[in-house]
Amino acid sequence: MQSFHPPLRTLMGPGPSDVHERVLAAMARPTLGHLDPAFQGMMEEVKAGLKALFKTENRLTFPVSAPGSAGMETCFVNLIEEGDTVVVVKNGVFGERMRENVVRAGGTAILIDVEWGKAPDPAVVDATLTAHPEASILAFVHAETSTGVLADAAALCAVAQKHDCLTIMDAVTSVGGVPVLIDEWGVDAVYTGSQKCLSCTPGLSPVSFSERALERVRARTSPVNSWFLDLSLVMAYWDGAGGRSYHHTAPVNALYGLHESLVMLFEEGLEAAWGRHAAMHKSLAAGLEALGLKFLVAPESRLPQLNTVIVPEGVDEASIRAHLLKAHNLEIGAGLGPLAGKVWRIGLMGTSARPENVELCITALADAFNRHQHPVDGEKALAAARAAA
Amino acid sequence: MQSFHPPLRTLMGPGPSDVHERVLAAMARPTLGHLDPAFQGMMEEVKAGLKALFKTENRLTFPVSAPGSAGMETCFVNLIEEGDTVVVVKNGVFGERMRENVVRAGGTAILIDVEWGKAPDPAVVDATLTAHPEASILAFVHAETSTGVLADAAALCAVAQKHDCLTIMDAVTSVGGVPVLIDEWGVDAVYTGSQKCLSCTPGLSPVSFSERALERVRARTSPVNSWFLDLSLVMAYWDGAGGRSYHHTAPVNALYGLHESLVMLFEEGLEAAWGRHAAMHKSLAAGLEALGLKFLVAPESRLPQLNTVIVPEGVDEASIRAHLLKAHNLEIGAGLGPLAGKVWRIGLMGTSARPENVELCITALADAFNRHQHPVDGEKALAAARAAA
Repeated sequence: MQSFHPPLRTLMGPGPSDVHERVLAAMARPTLGHLDPAFQGMMEEVKAGLKALFKTENRLTFPVSAPGSAGMETCFVNLIEEGDTVVVVKNGVFGERMRENVVRAGGTAILIDVEWGKAPDPAVVDATLTAHPEASILAFVHAETSTGVLADAAALCAVAQKHDCLTIMDAVTSVGGVPVLIDEWGVDAVYTGSQKCLSCTPGLSPVSFSERALERVRARTSPVNSWFLDLSLVMAYWDGAGGRSYHHTAPVNALYGLHESLVMLFEEGLEAAWGRHAAMHKSLAAGLEALGLKFLVAPESRLPQLNTVIVPEGVDEASIRAHLLKAHNLEIGAGLGPLAGKVWRIGLMGTSARPENVELCITALADAFNRHQHPVDGEKALAAARAAA
Repeated sequence: MQSFHPPLRTLMGPGPSDVHERVLAAMARPTLGHLDPAFQGMMEEVKAGLKALFKTENRLTFPVSAPGSAGMETCFVNLIEEGDTVVVVKNGVFGERMRENVVRAGGTAILIDVEWGKAPDPAVVDATLTAHPEASILAFVHAETSTGVLADAAALCAVAQKHDCLTIMDAVTSVGGVPVLIDEWGVDAVYTGSQKCLSCTPGLSPVSFSERALERVRARTSPVNSWFLDLSLVMAYWDGAGGRSYHHTAPVNALYGLHESLVMLFEEGLEAAWGRHAAMHKSLAAGLEALGLKFLVAPESRLPQLNTVIVPEGVDEASIRAHLLKAHNLEIGAGLGPLAGKVWRIGLMGTSARPENVELCITALADAFNRHQHPVDGEKALAAARAAA
C-alpha cells in the first residue's frame, strides 16, 4: 500500500464538480479540536454564510456532518412520525429516495409520478393535496440531478401553503447555480450538498429549517429514529446559545473547505454566480447543439448547471465516456435508472462553470465522436460555443 | 467573511488528535469522481487496509461516510429489529449512547451500569445474559473515551458466545493504539473513528461485520430505519463484486486522508504502533505522577492513549485548560457527565504519541500549575518522564 496520487481530472459530471485549489488548501490546514474557541468562531461564520446562501433568516441553518443523502434523511426523520402522510413528487432518482425516506421514518408516501425529464405540474400537486387532506408535508426535488430538470419551487411551495402543508425541498444541485430563495418561497426544510455548485469536496450537507418546521419537531410524541441526525441533539452543538455541548466530533477539515467555498462564493457574489452558470450553459448548449446533440429537457425546465443530452443513435455511450476520461481526463456522467445508456449528464457546477471547461468538453466530445464512427465538425461547434458565450 | 487560518495547536485531548502533514497533504489532492476507476482502486486499498487494521478477514469492512457516531448507528440500526433485546454495558458516555441507539432502533436495552472509571466485569455480564435469555446481542465499549478505561474485550466476547449472542464493540479510541483482534475475539460488529489513533481528520467511521452479523441482517423482516446507513444499500457501492452502483457520493478527499493514514500506520507496523503508545504512556504517566497527579483508572485497565487524571483539590480545571491553550497552544480534554470539573483527559493518540508531545504536556502543565497557586517542580517531572521513556 503506497501513497495515492490521483490523476488530474476535469469534473463535468453530476457531481462532485471541480474543487478550487483554495478549497483544497483550506482543507489541508492544521486540525483544531471541535470545541476550540477558534474553531467555534469559524462555525459561526459557516452558519451565517449558509443563511446568506439559502437566502433565509432561519436560525437552524448548519451543515450536517455527512453527504447530501444524510441531509435528506435529517429532514425526513425529524419531521415525520409514525402515521404521517407525505406527498412526494417523483421525477427522477431523488424523488424515489424521498419516498424511501418517508416509509423508513414510519410515514405513508403518496407518490406523484412524473415522467423523467419533465418538471412537476403544480396543478397536479394541487389536485393530489386536495384528494389527500390527511397529508401534512409536500416533498419535492428542486433540481433533479438524475434528469437535469428544474422544478418551479415557488409555485409548488404556494400550493403546499394553500393546503397547510410543510415543504421539504431537495436543493442539492440547485444551490449556488440557480436562485434558491428559502424565505421568499416559504420552504420549511431544505438540504443541499457541498460538492455541486459550491465547489467544495463531497461529505457535508447544509440544511435549514423554518420556525414552522421546528414547531413540528418540538411537538413530536416519539423520539427521532436516528440518534446521529436528531436535530434536538445536533443543535446542542451547533447552536452557540448557552454554550456548546458535545454531540459528535465535527469533521473539522471538511468544514474548513466549506468555509472557504462560501468565502469564494461571496467574493464573486451569489447573483453573479447564478449569472455565470446561465452564461456558461448558453455557451455549452450552443456547442452541444452544433455537434448535433439534443437535450432531454425542454428549454424552460433546463438546469444550467446540469445538461442532459441524448446519446445519438448508433453511438455507444460508455465508449465515449471512457475515451473522454482516458484521452482528455474529462469526466461526464452517465444516465441513471430508465435513462441508463440513453443520456449523458454534463455538469457546469461551481468552479467547473467556466469557458475553459466548456471548450474542453466540446473539443473532447468532438474528438471522441470522430474516433467512434460518428463524424462531427468540432471546430464549428467550438465557434458556436464561443459565439454564444 | 474571510479565509480561515487556524492557530497551530497540539492536540492532546480525547480526539481529534494531531493530524500528520502527510495526511493533510493527501486530503488536498485533486478531487476525483466517486465512480472514477482510479478512485475505486484506492477504495479497494482502503478496504484491504482496514481489514489488516481490524485483524479480520470480514468481507464487509469499509468506512462509513460520517463520524464515529454514525458508525455506531450503522451497527445498531442494521442488527436490531423491533422487539430485539440487547444487553448494553455502560461505563461512560458511549455506553449510554449505545442504549439510546438500541431504543431508537426499536429494541429493548438491558443496561449493566458500571461505575465510571471501572472496567466491566465479565462475570456480571455472564449473570445478566443468564438472567435474560431473550437477549441476542451484547454491546460494549472497548476503550471508553469518557473515562480512559480499557475493557477486556476477549473475555466479554467469550461470555457473549457462550450465550449465543452477537457482539457490537465500540473501538473508536482503541483501534491503532492497543490490540484490536476482531477475528480472534469473535467480534460481530465493530466501529471506529478516523480521528483518534489513526491520526486522520474526523469525519469517517470504519466498520466491520462478521458473516454471523450479515446473516442476521439478511434475515431481517423489516427494512432498516435508516436509508443512508442501510448496509444492503451501502454495500452495492463499496463491494466491488458485480460492478458498483451509486448509493451516495463518497467523501472523496476525506478518504484520501484515511488512505494515507493507513499507509503510514503500516509503514510503522501495527504492532510497533501499539508499542509506541504503551511507551509514551509510561513516560507521560511518570511525568504526571511526578507532578503529583493521580490517575482515575486502576493500572490494569488504563488506556495508554487516553490518560484520565484527577484535578488536584483547589485547582480550577477550566483555568488550567485555558492557560494551556492560550500560552502553549496545547489542547487537553475536560471531563464529561459525572466527571465534569473533576478530571482531565490527556490523549496520546497516533501522531500525538511521541516524546515531544509528552514533554510539552509536562512542561506546560507545570507552568499552568505554578501560575495558578499550585506549585510543582516541572524540571523534576520532565526528568521523570524522560527516565521512563
